[in-house]
Amino acid sequence: VKVRDIGEFGLITRLLGEVQAVDGVVVAAGDDAAVVEVTPGSRVVFTCDCMVEDVHFLRTANGEDIGYKLMAGNISDIAAMGGRARYAVVTLVTPSDEPVAWLEDIYAGIKECASQYGCHVVGGDTSRGSKIMLSVALLGEVLPGRELLRSGARQGDVVCISGPLGGSHAGLQVELGRVDAQLAGAQEARLKHFRPTVPTELALVLGEMGCRCANDISDGLASEAREIAAASRVGIELDGADIPVAREAEAVAPALGESALDYALYGGEEYALLFCLPPSLAALVRARFPQVQAIGRVIAGEGVYLLRHGERERLATAYTHFV
Amino acid sequence: VKVRDIGEFGLITRLLGEVQAVDGVVVAAGDDAAVVEVTPGSRVVFTCDCMVEDVHFLRTANGEDIGYKLMAGNISDIAAMGGRARYAVVTLVTPSDEPVAWLEDIYAGIKECASQYGCHVVGGDTSRGSKIMLSVALLGEVLPGRELLRSGARQGDVVCISGPLGGSHAGLQVELGRVDAQLAGAQEARLKHFRPTVPTELALVLGEMGCRCANDISDGLASEAREIAAASRVGIELDGADIPVAREAEAVAPALGESALDYALYGGEEYALLFCLPPSLAALVRARFPQVQAIGRVIAGEGVYLLRHGERERLATAYTHFV
Repeated sequence: VKVRDIGEFGLITRLLGEVQAVDGVVVAAGDDAAVVEVTPGSRVVFTCDCMVEDVHFLRTANGEDIGYKLMAGNISDIAAMGGRARYAVVTLVTPSDEPVAWLEDIYAGIKECASQYGCHVVGGDTSRGSKIMLSVALLGEVLPGRELLRSGARQGDVVCISGPLGGSHAGLQVELGRVDAQLAGAQEARLKHFRPTVPTELALVLGEMGCRCANDISDGLASEAREIAAASRVGIELDGADIPVAREAEAVAPALGESALDYALYGGEEYALLFCLPPSLAALVRARFPQVQAIGRVIAGEGVYLLRHGERERLATAYTHFV
Repeated sequence: VKVRDIGEFGLITRLLGEVQAVDGVVVAAGDDAAVVEVTPGSRVVFTCDCMVEDVHFLRTANGEDIGYKLMAGNISDIAAMGGRARYAVVTLVTPSDEPVAWLEDIYAGIKECASQYGCHVVGGDTSRGSKIMLSVALLGEVLPGRELLRSGARQGDVVCISGPLGGSHAGLQVELGRVDAQLAGAQEARLKHFRPTVPTELALVLGEMGCRCANDISDGLASEAREIAAASRVGIELDGADIPVAREAEAVAPALGESALDYALYGGEEYALLFCLPPSLAALVRARFPQVQAIGRVIAGEGVYLLRHGERERLATAYTHFV
């Protein structure tokens, strides 16, 4: 059996195995981040996320953008657990003939994003290697009982999204040179890809108000909804007409003969927050955060369905890193 | 300026810059691990360490050995701060045609070592990439005031080592095929390299007894002593005759026409603990841990000196990953 036969999720499950809920492990592998008790009563959210040259970025990309995006992805994982990001360590693998200035740009981006979210890089490790690889491990704090879990969705909950989707995927098309960089909206799309905004305040408020279920959109709305449905043992029905599509996706997708809604459904690395909560709470949240959109409901059963043009279609499998 | 021009330490310093002692950062980058307060009063030790194919291990190595060694190195960094390792996340970059079984072996080694030291792997991230790269980020706990710092050595302190040195470097020679694997002591040396023992109990007792200064031997005794001397603004004098040389080094070095004492002085990845403490405390520690050896003293001035055959020589620069 090769890695590509089982994909990223299969691999991580197989490698980590079952992490038992012992010794202060509150939430183990399988959610956006782990929650552990390092000292009794003090809960820590813990995650890591990596970027590899030629897989997640090209050498032609701006170094600060790469670093910013890497850190934003980690902060998003902490937020999606209801936590507040605090401290990071960074692993860097680099060829020894790499210009230091370019690596400094990457770290400047990492630190710029960190400081924007009240977070500090406190250490790291470097090694040589044939390609650049960066991994950030991030620690955050969460108050006991305020965790936002994949398994927290309940039948009858409203499914909400923190903002428009598909902008990051549109930006990736610009970065890959698939559309003219002069196209109206192209540079805005690029920013959505490399400088995503993480809704950290919303995430904290959700935990405080009693929401118990969230995922960030790392791998696309369809995929994240499926993860919540599977972990919560429920079904999810999405209303196609209510899914907010980023104007950057509306600008880029048509130029490629592609569907902006598909960008919103399947485009990853978005770092919007997908969450489920009872209708009464959803109304309160939407009053406080007007950009939050209700896009569907949690139903009995299993799977993720899209209602569109009067039809109900089951959503297909999403992008994984090893496909 | 290329990475190789400034070396690993120069690179990490330049990339991280000055981490200010704000917002709960108790010990920042530059020691074995960072110490941070995630919630007030609860101190967390935080570190990461990576291994890269062809740099730190060969594909011919046993997977479990690679994983074990990686985790031991991280646990050693936590111990060298006076902490107890608790939770880890693991980043894996791998080609997609990699056999899953070999990766499972690596993770089995990671988890075997973790469980031996009361530590749990709670999450991780995977990506594809052209070479295998593994990074472990590890969290530990430490009681406030019990941290063991590089900057904690004081003039008049005794310099001690937790046990014999040079065994790991001897094992590396076996692994690299430089000596006959049938040589007496060769397999024991291999074990010292891949299955190092981390003196975690000693580290905790040192913090408890009032010792304030330690480093683990990641990059060789000479290099670690130099780090302590520089951070503490003192000099260190080592007695060549008192440095305990591992019997594995005594077995392997002569077969290669090399010096076993050089293995002890410059061989890295050893994970013994080098520490400095007042003579009265040193006597108490040695009574409780008979394998601890006093090997020198902290003096005024700067630099690291070796006394041998009636001569006093200043120790040369050590191994770095980018040389």
